[in-house]
Amino acid sequence: MSTTKTEPRTTPASFHDNPFDPDASITVNLSDDNPATVSLPSLNPTTAKPRIIGVTELVLRDAHQSLLAARMGIEDMVDTCEDIDKAGYWSVECWGGATFDACIRFLNEDPWERLRTFRKLMPHSRLQMLLRGQNLLGYRHYDDMVVDKFVEKSAENGMDVFRVFDGLNDPRNIDQAMKAVKKVGKHAQGTICYTISPVHTVEGYLHLAGQLLDMGADSIAIKDMAALLRPQPAHDIIRAIKETYGNNTQINVHCHSTTGVTMATLYAAIRAGADVVDTAISSMSLGPGHNPTGSLVHMLEGTGYRTDLNMECLGRVREHFARVRPKYSQYETRVLVESDIFRTQIPGGMLSTMELQLKEQGAAHRRNEVMAEVASVRADAGFPPLVTPMSQIVGTQAIFNVLLGRYEKLTTEFADLVLGYYGRTPGDINPDLIVQAQEQTSKTPLCGRPADHLAPEWEDLVRTTKELEGSNATTQDVLTYAMFPDIASKFFTTRTQGPINVGKTQAQLVAEKESRLSGDLTPVAPITYNVIMGGRRLAVKVERA
Amino acid sequence: MSTTKTEPRTTPASFHDNPFDPDASITVNLSDDNPATVSLPSLNPTTAKPRIIGVTELVLRDAHQSLLAARMGIEDMVDTCEDIDKAGYWSVECWGGATFDACIRFLNEDPWERLRTFRKLMPHSRLQMLLRGQNLLGYRHYDDMVVDKFVEKSAENGMDVFRVFDGLNDPRNIDQAMKAVKKVGKHAQGTICYTISPVHTVEGYLHLAGQLLDMGADSIAIKDMAALLRPQPAHDIIRAIKETYGNNTQINVHCHSTTGVTMATLYAAIRAGADVVDTAISSMSLGPGHNPTGSLVHMLEGTGYRTDLNMECLGRVREHFARVRPKYSQYETRVLVESDIFRTQIPGGMLSTMELQLKEQGAAHRRNEVMAEVASVRADAGFPPLVTPMSQIVGTQAIFNVLLGRYEKLTTEFADLVLGYYGRTPGDINPDLIVQAQEQTSKTPLCGRPADHLAPEWEDLVRTTKELEGSNATTQDVLTYAMFPDIASKFFTTRTQGPINVGKTQAQLVAEKESRLSGDLTPVAPITYNVIMGGRRLAVKVERA
Repeated sequence: MSTTKTEPRTTPASFHDNPFDPDASITVNLSDDNPATVSLPSLNPTTAKPRIIGVTELVLRDAHQSLLAARMGIEDMVDTCEDIDKAGYWSVECWGGATFDACIRFLNEDPWERLRTFRKLMPHSRLQMLLRGQNLLGYRHYDDMVVDKFVEKSAENGMDVFRVFDGLNDPRNIDQAMKAVKKVGKHAQGTICYTISPVHTVEGYLHLAGQLLDMGADSIAIKDMAALLRPQPAHDIIRAIKETYGNNTQINVHCHSTTGVTMATLYAAIRAGADVVDTAISSMSLGPGHNPTGSLVHMLEGTGYRTDLNMECLGRVREHFARVRPKYSQYETRVLVESDIFRTQIPGGMLSTMELQLKEQGAAHRRNEVMAEVASVRADAGFPPLVTPMSQIVGTQAIFNVLLGRYEKLTTEFADLVLGYYGRTPGDINPDLIVQAQEQTSKTPLCGRPADHLAPEWEDLVRTTKELEGSNATTQDVLTYAMFPDIASKFFTTRTQGPINVGKTQAQLVAEKESRLSGDLTPVAPITYNVIMGGRRLAVKVERA
Repeated sequence: MSTTKTEPRTTPASFHDNPFDPDASITVNLSDDNPATVSLPSLNPTTAKPRIIGVTELVLRDAHQSLLAARMGIEDMVDTCEDIDKAGYWSVECWGGATFDACIRFLNEDPWERLRTFRKLMPHSRLQMLLRGQNLLGYRHYDDMVVDKFVEKSAENGMDVFRVFDGLNDPRNIDQAMKAVKKVGKHAQGTICYTISPVHTVEGYLHLAGQLLDMGADSIAIKDMAALLRPQPAHDIIRAIKETYGNNTQINVHCHSTTGVTMATLYAAIRAGADVVDTAISSMSLGPGHNPTGSLVHMLEGTGYRTDLNMECLGRVREHFARVRPKYSQYETRVLVESDIFRTQIPGGMLSTMELQLKEQGAAHRRNEVMAEVASVRADAGFPPLVTPMSQIVGTQAIFNVLLGRYEKLTTEFADLVLGYYGRTPGDINPDLIVQAQEQTSKTPLCGRPADHLAPEWEDLVRTTKELEGSNATTQDVLTYAMFPDIASKFFTTRTQGPINVGKTQAQLVAEKESRLSGDLTPVAPITYNVIMGGRRLAVKVERA
């Protein structure tokens, strides 16, 4: 990160409304394996007292987003909410961009109604959402007033914890949303997106954490969307934050499990001082999803750290989703572990998209050239993390470079990225590309906060939404329209028909399987039969009418 | 463990023919994330120098045993052996009881020929096998001479490392096999089977390690077949062994991944001083199998520990098995993570067997009673680890207790277990049961080493084998017959027909799927067709001849 250095904060962030006092005296069930006669070094030399680790349950948002393309309907969640509510999680993540999108795009479900349902069914839990900073839940920057309204309405409808991030880690894209969360008195979680590159250092992440705390962050999340965070860097970043900003700075760690490494990362993170970690109930875990909640509980046995989760509740939640998951098997990702990303730097989803693009161009054989070009384009673009939308922007430009010649043509999006329209990239951008992008697009480079260049838009959004068929003209509807104008317009017209469950019931699955197995009894191609009629044997050709 | 205490060894076991000198100075690629300006505590305070961690690759034995019911044929392994050989593993596990059994039972493949093939294709690797102590690869105790012959022939045919274990951790069941391995000058790896119970303590495991070292063990394996080993106990056991018997005592750690916990266990084990860890190539990993090899490599980045594996070779091995695995999908276990075993103490395989038994008795509704009874029976039997054959013995007795009344009838095997015929159990046995077993079976309790009570049997085995149709009368054939008399007798008669591959080729899988989808074109039930012949329209009923 190329941001300028500020002085470290002297006042530590407080552990806001956290029921788990890290300094409380807690009785830990020490393992029977603790030896009586052998002198062993303590695993946990810096913490004299046992410590409760908070857990954020991901099953209602990121788990089904990562495993089942965000398709799970509210109908398949409501029955288990009581057990989730009573399990003792630090928070329950249940709302975010892809699930909001899927609600109105595929499920004919009002995402605000979903939020209110969660609020009603889980009265004792902190509800948590993922917010893309100035992008909110959409794919562009919004004017500050839209940001304020969105946060206000989310809080009003039941949201407690806002995890605010920006894909480029540009704090200027996070600032307004953090302010809005503070204004409504909710938990503002500032987020560090973790990635690996020559310009991403512990020092840089530490500096970003300081900027987030200066915005009033109640906690710092380390978000590892590509499962690249290994134990040692996790330890280093967490120790650095705790030592610089105080041990009471709450740190939440969010890892995916794609690379098979991150269960050890959670272990190292907790030992380094992480306060809350994210997991998903085991029947909705692993692969491109997350580490299993139950495994985390058991992993900590005897370490001097423990969760405070109710295993009976966890067992019922696990069984619930074990029953539900097969309904959505058509949306399942099959990849179980994928550690090659450490070498190639290309996440699996990005790779398959690029392969498809190449195939469509009849250039599938140039895959390896494109893979090498990705690294080069990413470097030229200042090492953005390869997540949406950066992965698409960098991948497509790499394909252009291989097929047409290096930077013969810049895509519109790549030019925008280079000119600063997405925000400040972590490293410096190749200056030749900035010149070229200006020439190609006639746009000027943007140096300030991207959202400062936006015109006010709230009144227009209100006006347009009011005119839409089926719109209730509530602020929520205006916000839904603002996020996804095209699909929201369509959704409003069908909303009254109620939610569609795109999963398949057991009966449907069985019926489909049987119909596949028995086949259509009418032959599809002409077949010659021997037919006996009135004692005469005839060869008869039969075909479908 | 209730064995009497011996004095700790004063001479540390040597790190026999290990190419990785732990004290050698090695250049480690330190992570770019290491901060320059922040003072961080070292993750690795006791080891000043970076250290190479050895890896045992499990894909050729335990991985396909755990994931594909040991069904993989040699044909699907040979093409990747060169890459495995060049990858730089500490050893390659490739032989053991279930795969030997599957060779002659399902694959018409001579397991000794398989071993020789591996030896030829992997000339630079240590080949490793799992040996059930006095049981060798079979399901009963063998006379010492059979043990000696088996080890001698295994070594002669190419085996280098013998991991010797006993399901009860009774050293008397391990002793003869260890002696035999030492005699042929191969690597004798003494094994601790890890389980959890009130009588299993770090001190007990430490004591067993001492007994194994006294037998001349070149290394100590901690074998965690049920994925119960969590980070803290792993750390405690390893530290205890290293501190008591010297830092040069080589420790190998074998964990399954069933519970989702053990990647963190490997991390803690390595930090505690483990020298070699077992993993399986990622395309044949996780679930009831093992942690992924590639993920281990990446996990250690920056920690001061590293493997010395060639990632190019690993990539090709991974791709190879990614292609092969779908052929065996009919044998796949579907369970991905199962952490409930920490609570129930009942491994998944044992639970499904018991449920089946109960169903057959029309008593499926008594499942929960039986589950509670298992814990009680296990305690009465001195807390044997619930692995084959103890899981079946304890499970069946628990069912008898629930259906017929507690200990109304002892099964033959449970009576044998109680009377010491399997060896010494970890804890004390309920004395009432010993009396009852004596009365029921008229057998006397057995106090000494079980194998001391066996009559010599080698000459008989030789004589019988020579008379079998198709037998070559080699020592290998005698040993194959000794392990599995019935299936060996049958195998000898079909051996010349050569190996059967029970996997399905891509073409077969496609053909099957197509046939399922299109259905058999001949209708299975009578169907009435309208048939037009010579301009006449007739209703004709057609049925399969």
